[in-house]
Amino acid sequence: MAKSPETEHPIKAYGYAASDTSGTFSPLTFSRRATGDKDVRFKVLYCGICHSDLHFAKNEWGVTTYPVVPGHEIVGVVTEVGNKVEKFKVGETVGVGCLVGSCRSCQSCSNNLEQFCPKMTFTYAFPNYSDGTITYGGYSDHMVADEHFVLHWPDNLPLDSGAPLLCAGITTYSPLRHYGLDKPGMKIGVVGLGGLGHVAVKIAKALGAEVTVFSTTPEKKEEALDGLKADHFIVSKDMDQMQAATGTLDGILDTVSASHPIVPFLNILKTDGKLVLVGMPAVPHELPAFPLVLGRKVVGGSNIGGLKETQEMLDFCAKHGITADIEIIPIDYVNTAMERLLKSDVRYRFVIDVANSIKVPSDTRSKV
Amino acid sequence: MAKSPETEHPIKAYGYAASDTSGTFSPLTFSRRATGDKDVRFKVLYCGICHSDLHFAKNEWGVTTYPVVPGHEIVGVVTEVGNKVEKFKVGETVGVGCLVGSCRSCQSCSNNLEQFCPKMTFTYAFPNYSDGTITYGGYSDHMVADEHFVLHWPDNLPLDSGAPLLCAGITTYSPLRHYGLDKPGMKIGVVGLGGLGHVAVKIAKALGAEVTVFSTTPEKKEEALDGLKADHFIVSKDMDQMQAATGTLDGILDTVSASHPIVPFLNILKTDGKLVLVGMPAVPHELPAFPLVLGRKVVGGSNIGGLKETQEMLDFCAKHGITADIEIIPIDYVNTAMERLLKSDVRYRFVIDVANSIKVPSDTRSKV
Repeated sequence: MAKSPETEHPIKAYGYAASDTSGTFSPLTFSRRATGDKDVRFKVLYCGICHSDLHFAKNEWGVTTYPVVPGHEIVGVVTEVGNKVEKFKVGETVGVGCLVGSCRSCQSCSNNLEQFCPKMTFTYAFPNYSDGTITYGGYSDHMVADEHFVLHWPDNLPLDSGAPLLCAGITTYSPLRHYGLDKPGMKIGVVGLGGLGHVAVKIAKALGAEVTVFSTTPEKKEEALDGLKADHFIVSKDMDQMQAATGTLDGILDTVSASHPIVPFLNILKTDGKLVLVGMPAVPHELPAFPLVLGRKVVGGSNIGGLKETQEMLDFCAKHGITADIEIIPIDYVNTAMERLLKSDVRYRFVIDVANSIKVPSDTRSKV
Repeated sequence: MAKSPETEHPIKAYGYAASDTSGTFSPLTFSRRATGDKDVRFKVLYCGICHSDLHFAKNEWGVTTYPVVPGHEIVGVVTEVGNKVEKFKVGETVGVGCLVGSCRSCQSCSNNLEQFCPKMTFTYAFPNYSDGTITYGGYSDHMVADEHFVLHWPDNLPLDSGAPLLCAGITTYSPLRHYGLDKPGMKIGVVGLGGLGHVAVKIAKALGAEVTVFSTTPEKKEEALDGLKADHFIVSKDMDQMQAATGTLDGILDTVSASHPIVPFLNILKTDGKLVLVGMPAVPHELPAFPLVLGRKVVGGSNIGGLKETQEMLDFCAKHGITADIEIIPIDYVNTAMERLLKSDVRYRFVIDVANSIKVPSDTRSKV
């Protein structure tokens, strides 16, 4: 299905790519399309490292086309716009998240739910709906995307610590809104205190919730309560603590991608409570019908968010001063960062300072 | 916890009870309370046989107190009312379903969701919230219940074929309403064509849905399409038929209590589709996160319904001419009926013609 980008695309680009299932990154010169009528071209400034990047680099989901240039938490500055671009100007700060394409005409697209369009195109390692070439993400010197998939960056939102919101922010903001877990005073749980979870706590607090963090790591209590201003902290392996919380929460956002039992969290929900999964363990959950039936509870899922809601989320975070807690790294640190990510040795997101650390070869740079 | 009904209750009653895990029924003289200020006493005319009755008779859910007199699909005629009863008069036809008590003051009770009250009292084999005695159901000559838990029987609703609506009707009506699967034109699936499923098809059709029946039994196709007026029939073991239906339904009501995979039904839902479980298999379902996350789908549950909604359901069914398809039996046929029920050898509900078949001993009868 994929055409050769070399023959299709005239603009040289430079980035860091994994070329096999070792997941080891090395520099790569590749190419991007010319700026189309509706395209925005931009220089990448910052790019967050999401755990998905590691899954894709190692082909752990079985869908990777190599070489893969990951990165879908991208902030940049516009360098060129197509003739028919209406929303952006050269010099403007922009963001690109997980999506760079969709059909724009199906029911999902009409409802601003591009993430569910059957022809949805992920930002990297995915066949582009429009021309079949494979997409490359933000671990690179520059990007080009249809303006529909480009976000306006709010003036007062930091470029570096705001970048992870493009995935971690929308992934947690959207389900809180969609499942009605956004009413002030609600009691909301967040399972897992990592890249997604720590942003979820901040967003839920800004929505007015009383937030309980569930973690298997007792040492995270102080970070949760003092650092993230969560209201309660429960060690999810401590059955006494879990038992004491039975029937107390309106909703729980489960951000954990490792295999784990969900029944204890169902028990912590009130009648009509909602457990929303945004992590995707490789092994199926065990789901007895009893707690769902006897408490009219639901288990739901949520997948990033549409472009309209992503812009809304960025504006919300800017208004409420929400950013990710990050560690800034140079791009040649990416292999070390991935090793540390695998050990959860980061509080809570790596962000690559792309513009200040990428060393674009002169023959590539001249053509951009 | 249970007090002796012999010492507590002065009114002799007569019914059919299972006394051990063999689940075999035999006649039993027991006792019921005197008519309290808010109580309605009524002669039982008809009582449906629900699969739960069999589970309780054999103590398959581990909560049975013997002897158990089952029956929670009860239609009768009022013989006595307490001093403060406001809604009912002697001679009126009434119904009692799965509930005969709750605290009346908690949040669930305040929201007309008595079925989720922590002090909710099931109609049989359950400690009565008010006095701790064990409840006895409708396989008996008469009943007594607080008027709040008694339903007005609509004039044009048949007493015999309407009786199963008190469990099978509300169990399927409530989730279609609660989960928003009640909009005309919606595409709704019903999994399992038994006591619950066949009523679900009728109710969904009356709500204006396009209904697809899923069954493991190809022979039920004609019954589903011609008898119940379903629009489509899919053999759920036929992977080609299932594959062809991918992404087509707004909601699915799963009435099956035997262990079965739910992922094939998740795949048949559209984005934002809802799979609602009302059957409770003993073994947990396998639930991978992927279909929930990638399609923002939910798996929910639902448990009968509150009293207000049960009355609404009876009135809806009367208006739309909905009854269960039944086989009328005398009460001394109950053991044979249970054997046939176990083999799904009934289309689709046994209803006991209690008043015309129960032979109450003269010494018991005189005291009622």
